[in-house]
Amino acid sequence: MTAGFSFSLRATDGAARTGVIETPRGEIRTPAFMPVGTAGTVKAMLPGHVREAGADIILGNTYHLMLRPGAERVAALGGLHAFMNWPRPILTDSGGFQVMSLGALRKLTEEGVSFRSHIDGSAHMLTPERSIEIQCLLGADIQMQLDECPAIPIEKEAARRSMLLSARWAERSKRAFEEKSAPGQALFGIVQGADYDDLRAESAARLLETGFDGYAVGGLAVGEGRAVMFRVLEATAPRLPADRPRYLMGVGKPADIVGAVARGIDMFDCVLPTRAGRHGQAWTRNGPINIKNAQYADDPAPLDPASACPASRDYSKAYLNHLFRAGEYLGPMLLTWHNVAFYQSLMAEIRAAVAAGRFSEFVADFRAATGESVL
Amino acid sequence: MTAGFSFSLRATDGAARTGVIETPRGEIRTPAFMPVGTAGTVKAMLPGHVREAGADIILGNTYHLMLRPGAERVAALGGLHAFMNWPRPILTDSGGFQVMSLGALRKLTEEGVSFRSHIDGSAHMLTPERSIEIQCLLGADIQMQLDECPAIPIEKEAARRSMLLSARWAERSKRAFEEKSAPGQALFGIVQGADYDDLRAESAARLLETGFDGYAVGGLAVGEGRAVMFRVLEATAPRLPADRPRYLMGVGKPADIVGAVARGIDMFDCVLPTRAGRHGQAWTRNGPINIKNAQYADDPAPLDPASACPASRDYSKAYLNHLFRAGEYLGPMLLTWHNVAFYQSLMAEIRAAVAAGRFSEFVADFRAATGESVL
Repeated sequence: MTAGFSFSLRATDGAARTGVIETPRGEIRTPAFMPVGTAGTVKAMLPGHVREAGADIILGNTYHLMLRPGAERVAALGGLHAFMNWPRPILTDSGGFQVMSLGALRKLTEEGVSFRSHIDGSAHMLTPERSIEIQCLLGADIQMQLDECPAIPIEKEAARRSMLLSARWAERSKRAFEEKSAPGQALFGIVQGADYDDLRAESAARLLETGFDGYAVGGLAVGEGRAVMFRVLEATAPRLPADRPRYLMGVGKPADIVGAVARGIDMFDCVLPTRAGRHGQAWTRNGPINIKNAQYADDPAPLDPASACPASRDYSKAYLNHLFRAGEYLGPMLLTWHNVAFYQSLMAEIRAAVAAGRFSEFVADFRAATGESVL
Repeated sequence: MTAGFSFSLRATDGAARTGVIETPRGEIRTPAFMPVGTAGTVKAMLPGHVREAGADIILGNTYHLMLRPGAERVAALGGLHAFMNWPRPILTDSGGFQVMSLGALRKLTEEGVSFRSHIDGSAHMLTPERSIEIQCLLGADIQMQLDECPAIPIEKEAARRSMLLSARWAERSKRAFEEKSAPGQALFGIVQGADYDDLRAESAARLLETGFDGYAVGGLAVGEGRAVMFRVLEATAPRLPADRPRYLMGVGKPADIVGAVARGIDMFDCVLPTRAGRHGQAWTRNGPINIKNAQYADDPAPLDPASACPASRDYSKAYLNHLFRAGEYLGPMLLTWHNVAFYQSLMAEIRAAVAAGRFSEFVADFRAATGESVL
């Protein structure tokens, strides 16, 4: 493992794990949820509030940052941490997922992906090497290999070709990382293989041979449904080394997270809490509510009077309802803050439950509160 | 003066004054600038940050609040202070200014103004009595009489007719206030008369006869220009009692404020710092800058490294430029916060200068920094 970066398991409960990732910029308690700071900001939140909510690490998007303001510009301004006033760990994706989503605007070859910017139409090329170079310019503490992320369903032969391309890109990413990275930075490989267990196994074996500081499970949460996702995790997680963090990319709803922890996952990211917050959806222990509904217009209760988060505790549902109806900035600001704090509380409860050996009780309570089964 | 509400002059320097208004919800240091919280929120700011920036009092708009969420609803939810999580003093306007701006949608009679909501077209009537009733439902600490606010230029006869109507409404407002208000709440009358010194004098004399806790100068900052505004203040302020606060409504730019303080004004409100902040304009000691300009894209300096305000101190101009270019919420959030803090620092410096008997040096320094003459 890269010097200065380490992962210590503190406890396990069934397949569920809790531990700590140590980085030069601070520790990350796992299972961890990373709020998404797409373009150098967790949308509608102050970085200090993201931290106070309990986040140890946030995610930045290479694709967005390379286009605007530009990786070289961020580097000249002292790196992404200084730029966005977030001194703690940052994980960046490779940019691949967003680039692949450009459809007709991109072209995939062995070398990498050429594409046109969605902002100004300018031409760019993302290769495994350039992705790592950008992530190093940003100063990301945890960097991700460039991969291809096909949608499910996909024919098996196509899935294998894609997985093998990602495996070759993993090797190239690692070589580039060894050349360019700073001490204490880490590189994660990404397991692909769609919903084919044997392809997932082959992908994992190839990545392990190359060797990474952590392993992500990619290509899920792309519409395949929760049952398929959980089955892939059950087939994949046991093939990943116990002493490395496991990251399920782009997931998810609280039930997805609880179910994935039960299957051995340590790290998560998703735009859901922030995006939902901007659109008036608040997560509660019993599931999501739409604060814009008329039923809240006269409701004097806050979202969670027992919360340590001011957004959850100090404003009535009636006020939040009013802010959204009036189109006020403060509505998205408060509801994003609430949702980010809600997710961090969920992770803290998961960690405590695993540490105490009572994760199955936690899952049962979760099911009772939300009606969602995750096993 | 209303029991529980008082104004103490602490020092004067020429016509400039500094003092303290005491209310049951806390004191207001004067000269004071009130950030505008139109619809129950100082746009894009947390109330705690408004306070930390130095604001002792904010302004709420009766017109907006009566339409949405509705004054009776706010009252049922505990009043505007509890509703918006701002426990300190609030001044509400009468609603008249916004209603008069509705043009063809409103009709003025001796009784009051009937109008249709800009939100849903519903019919409403605002009278002096209803305006006070709404302000009492909201729980405003300082309430304003309903008045008519004609544009300048206006023929003298029309200006006098309008001023006399406002004076009759002032009397009706006071009777309603005496019936409905809670202990410690205060009512201000509003001097009208356009740019006719003798009408302003007559308006002030009529209001003094009725008797109010404070006196506002209305009908300015409506396009008449700074020279006319200052001349009207010079004619009007000396006719107002020294032991009552004087409030210049809807003003203004820093130079307007400094010039009005030099002419004996104690209180101000304006949407400028918040509206400008949402649109990328940051106020600095040398005047406003547009943070979206390309020249800031690589500027590592914050807006004010010596400020106690995190928004001014902890984020580079390059980052703020990026946030506005990317259309991120955090751009308006930080720039509004910066501008509100800038205005509050300006007021603190004005108060200190008047208290120390060096207000003319302050005005000279202000002119040297901004190039704007206010005398």
